[in-house]
Parts: sequence; C-alpha cells; structure tokens
Amino acid sequence: MPLAIEQARAAGARGEVPVGAVITLEGQVIATASNRTRELNDPTAHAEILAIRAACSHLGVERITGADLYVTLEPCPMCAAAIAHARVARLYYGASDPKSGGVEQGARVFDHAQCHHKPEVYEGINARECAQLLRGFFKNRR
Amino acid sequence: MPLAIEQARAAGARGEVPVGAVITLEGQVIATASNRTRELNDPTAHAEILAIRAACSHLGVERITGADLYVTLEPCPMCAAAIAHARVARLYYGASDPKSGGVEQGARVFDHAQCHHKPEVYEGINARECAQLLRGFFKNRR
Repeated sequence: MPLAIEQARAAGARGEVPVGAVITLEGQVIATASNRTRELNDPTAHAEILAIRAACSHLGVERITGADLYVTLEPCPMCAAAIAHARVARLYYGASDPKSGGVEQGARVFDHAQCHHKPEVYEGINARECAQLLRGFFKNRR
Repeated sequence: MPLAIEQARAAGARGEVPVGAVITLEGQVIATASNRTRELNDPTAHAEILAIRAACSHLGVERITGADLYVTLEPCPMCAAAIAHARVARLYYGASDPKSGGVEQGARVFDHAQCHHKPEVYEGINARECAQLLRGFFKNRR
C-alpha cells in the first residue's frame, strides 16, 4: 500500500485526483499506476484500470488469476467489475468512498449473481493516509 | 444499431464474443468498436470501453456530453459505469444480458446515488438479431 500511496501522490502532483494502484503476483510487483483521466482524455483511465491493463499486457494474458491489487480508494463500479473480469484474487483498499464507491455501497458489484468472480476484499488499509491525500487535494482545488 | 451489429459480426469472425458499439454526436458517427479482450490481452477491452476511449481521444475531451452510444448487448457494470463517467446522454442497447448485465439487473449501476450521471436508456433495439449473433457464436464454440 505505501507504493500505491506514492502513486496517488504523483497523480495529485499532476493535477489528477490522487488515487494509486499496485498489482502484485507471487509477491512481485507487476504493475503500478495512478489516475490519468485528464492527461489521457480518458474517463476510463482510473488507477485500477491502468494497472490491470499494464499487468495483463506485461504477462500477455487476459486474466491475472492469483494477483493482489492494492488501491488507495474504494473502487468505483467500473473498476470493481474490471477487477472481477481480470480474476484478481485479493483486493486491498484504503479509504472508503461513500460518494462514488461500488464495492461496499451503491452498486455493490461483487454481490450479484451477474458477477462471475468475487475477490477477497480487505478494506481500510492505511485508510487515514489515503483519505487525507484526497481531502488535501480537493481542499486545495477550492 | 446496424453499424454496431456489423462491428459485432467482425468481432465474432475474429473469435471474440460478438459485441459491437457505435458512438454518435449530433448525428455523426465519432467512434465504432468491437470486443477485443482476447486480441489485446485486456479484460477491459469491451466494445463500449474501446468506443468511449476512441471518441474521447478523437475529440480531445474527457467527457462526451450529448453523445449517443449504441451497443448490441446490455452493458456489464464496468461498461455501464464508464458510460456514466463519460456523460453519454443516451444509451441504446440490443439484447438483454441476464447472465452478466449491469443495467436492468444485478448491480443496476445507474440506479444508485453513487452514480453521478444517468443516461436515458432504450433497450431491445434490434434485440433478436443481436441475441442471435451471440447464440450462434457460443453454439459454434461448443
């Protein structure tokens, strides 16, 4: 998670909402990414999506079965469903996101029969630091 | 929708699940795409995601406010949330997807306070033809 937080800080420094993600497989980091929706003019370029695409591209596979994904903020429904499609084994996230989250609230993407893979979910990892990064970012923008 | 069906057929011919998408803005086609998850080793490469990324890239914007998206199959939660993030104005889809859909069943992505934009949704457009394409594809694979 510290590496994901570092990624989030880098996004914030670029004027992007500070969210970072890291994917590991068998203890090795195989992808790191941070939010780049503005830079790339791509509303799908959330940290999790970019990390999944990078990890799959790196390994030449469509599914990263057995992988762990760390992200500083609760995934939105888009990212949660991408995590399921990619067959990520374990999801660790920092801050909860009552406003836009799709794991523990709202769409609760993993909790329906239409979701064909549910990762183990561990929330609240370094949550305070992850949330403070976001609060600081939005406070500075106002 | 006929253009989206043509895209879906092209995906099927490449061995991909036959789903196609088209985005129009003010009556002009600005993006066409079809499912390429296998070809690209990218579990996020659904037709809708590729079409949204192409349309945003083409226009140099992060949101395609006012755009219409046509897709042959009910979007999954990943694609539905991407449609909301991109601020697509109207979603037209063909076949319903009881197995993996996220619009009219399961996660029902647009129906939560955590979804910040709900497009107008029109379902069942050329539904029989869209569904037959998928049925034929999976029948041939077995």
